[in-house]
Amino acid sequence: MAQVVSNKRVLLKDYVVGQTKESDMILKSDTIELKLPQGSNGVLVKLLYLSIDPYMRSQMSYSEDNFVPSFTPGSPLKGYGVAKVLESGHSKFKKGDFVWGLVGWEEYSIINDPETDLFKIEDNDVPLSYYTGILGMTGITAYVAFNEICSPKKGEYVYISAAAGSVGLLLGQFSKARGCYVIGSAGSKEKVDLLKNKFGFDEAFNYKEEKDLDAALKRYCPKGIDVYFENVGGKMLEAVLLNMRLYGRIAGIGMISQHNVVEEEPVRYLLSVITKRLTMKGFVVHDHYDLFPKYYETILPLIKNGTIQNVEDVSEGLESAPAALVGMFAGKNVGKKVVAVARE
Amino acid sequence: MAQVVSNKRVLLKDYVVGQTKESDMILKSDTIELKLPQGSNGVLVKLLYLSIDPYMRSQMSYSEDNFVPSFTPGSPLKGYGVAKVLESGHSKFKKGDFVWGLVGWEEYSIINDPETDLFKIEDNDVPLSYYTGILGMTGITAYVAFNEICSPKKGEYVYISAAAGSVGLLLGQFSKARGCYVIGSAGSKEKVDLLKNKFGFDEAFNYKEEKDLDAALKRYCPKGIDVYFENVGGKMLEAVLLNMRLYGRIAGIGMISQHNVVEEEPVRYLLSVITKRLTMKGFVVHDHYDLFPKYYETILPLIKNGTIQNVEDVSEGLESAPAALVGMFAGKNVGKKVVAVARE
Repeated sequence: MAQVVSNKRVLLKDYVVGQTKESDMILKSDTIELKLPQGSNGVLVKLLYLSIDPYMRSQMSYSEDNFVPSFTPGSPLKGYGVAKVLESGHSKFKKGDFVWGLVGWEEYSIINDPETDLFKIEDNDVPLSYYTGILGMTGITAYVAFNEICSPKKGEYVYISAAAGSVGLLLGQFSKARGCYVIGSAGSKEKVDLLKNKFGFDEAFNYKEEKDLDAALKRYCPKGIDVYFENVGGKMLEAVLLNMRLYGRIAGIGMISQHNVVEEEPVRYLLSVITKRLTMKGFVVHDHYDLFPKYYETILPLIKNGTIQNVEDVSEGLESAPAALVGMFAGKNVGKKVVAVARE
Repeated sequence: MAQVVSNKRVLLKDYVVGQTKESDMILKSDTIELKLPQGSNGVLVKLLYLSIDPYMRSQMSYSEDNFVPSFTPGSPLKGYGVAKVLESGHSKFKKGDFVWGLVGWEEYSIINDPETDLFKIEDNDVPLSYYTGILGMTGITAYVAFNEICSPKKGEYVYISAAAGSVGLLLGQFSKARGCYVIGSAGSKEKVDLLKNKFGFDEAFNYKEEKDLDAALKRYCPKGIDVYFENVGGKMLEAVLLNMRLYGRIAGIGMISQHNVVEEEPVRYLLSVITKRLTMKGFVVHDHYDLFPKYYETILPLIKNGTIQNVEDVSEGLESAPAALVGMFAGKNVGKKVVAVARE
């Protein structure tokens, strides 16, 4: 007879309007029989690591045209994570495989369509948690923004907002490796120090201490910005538009400042797009998942020889996930925010 | 001894803030000796046609980072026009040549750097005034936006704002020739009728009669917009962002609604750039003047066989130029606004 175990789960309480709070999520303790239903083509997995990502905020609200589907109140949140296969009804996965992909926020989960939702982890020389970050959605996001959208050239001025976030730290490292002049902004002295001292950013500043973002950019990037990696939106984008150089490129990666507002903040100075001949290009990373093999070929050697570093900010236990998500919007994490649910 | 003639000129009175009015310009009657100064490498020209263009508005205000230099109060405005060479000190131009390019708003002008400012008109089979429009800056603007920026594909949904303006009418014709579904907006019933009945737009609407531009676009482009030719900015751009389809392209050509405002109107819904994977690309047409030979090769046969039509809205006499410019911002013209200063 199959083992019955307790299964902690994080459920969405109700659709969220405005700022999200921990109380928007409910921690529930259920039980689960560790067995796939008869005839299932899915896999039963044990969750190891959860990836905490800003885009999830939009799924917590009701919207008909959410670019990813809204969560269902009363059901677990869903996000990226690393898991171990306990039982498989699918020919491409077997018991003992490690996988990453879209999983429920619950200790044990049945994934009905594993071929769509999961990737098998082939390289075990790096920590498994890296597949929530540098080897997962975060990493390929930075890779696409850098190589497919902006292609900074050596010597160009690159500005990265939310630079101490998981995508920002990778973009900074890619840009330095390319020979760019790199400016980053973040929300604390600790983060700014990290950018300058550990990651070799040429300039970094704490945006919370700047009353006038335009003036700050003029001070830290006096020659202007060729490439902007947009992670923030709103007032930051306005200030950037005033400081872009001719023929500049803006990669629209995310707008973290706009996720917890009821009405999207308007942006001035779009006339600059014309007068400065700018290109602003948005992308959604799952359109580019075919690039994973190429990306792994590039990044795995760089991780192993220490050229590119992965920075993780780990909380322990599924019960810490709601605080981790809410904390991310308050800028609490440095690097990739990970929840360690179980260590195998 | 050289002939001395009267020379009407339109001077900028002072830098303009907000809405421009006819009284911002002064009509002055000077005299001029029809002779180049000793040793000049320039050309003396007689102005025939003036092109009235929205971008000129930005030159009427003081700004250090105007993308084209501000006009000088007390001096004539400067814009595109067609002229005849009366005397030349430059080896590439000779007396009797017809030219188009940047000229002063005055009946007779000395152009000091004709190789930079003027193009020689080689094809005389089309009316000379066409070089203010379809064969001048207007034409190449539409060509670049269409071919270099957006490249609409057959069957795509193309929306053009200010569609009865000179650039808009060309874009509509290019798009119909490509086999696109074309929607246009303009500011009067007369213009809307012209778009639908004369130029075969699939849909057209009067934006002034629409309280809710988002709702209007949903009604006229229920399937959404693949390609938007942006001539307007502000609230129109907001409504378009809500109605773009995935992977849509926006060419930033101009933002006529933003020229006469003191503070640029902010734009919401930029998050759509990311969620819908949009590309918004601005350009300034004089970066692309190397394309003129290729453009003429394409467009001249189409004009001559009647496939593409040039629409002109002509005022008579240099004294009508201030009203023509002010009227353009009130949407008075249909097609290319031209001032006929002299007919050779």
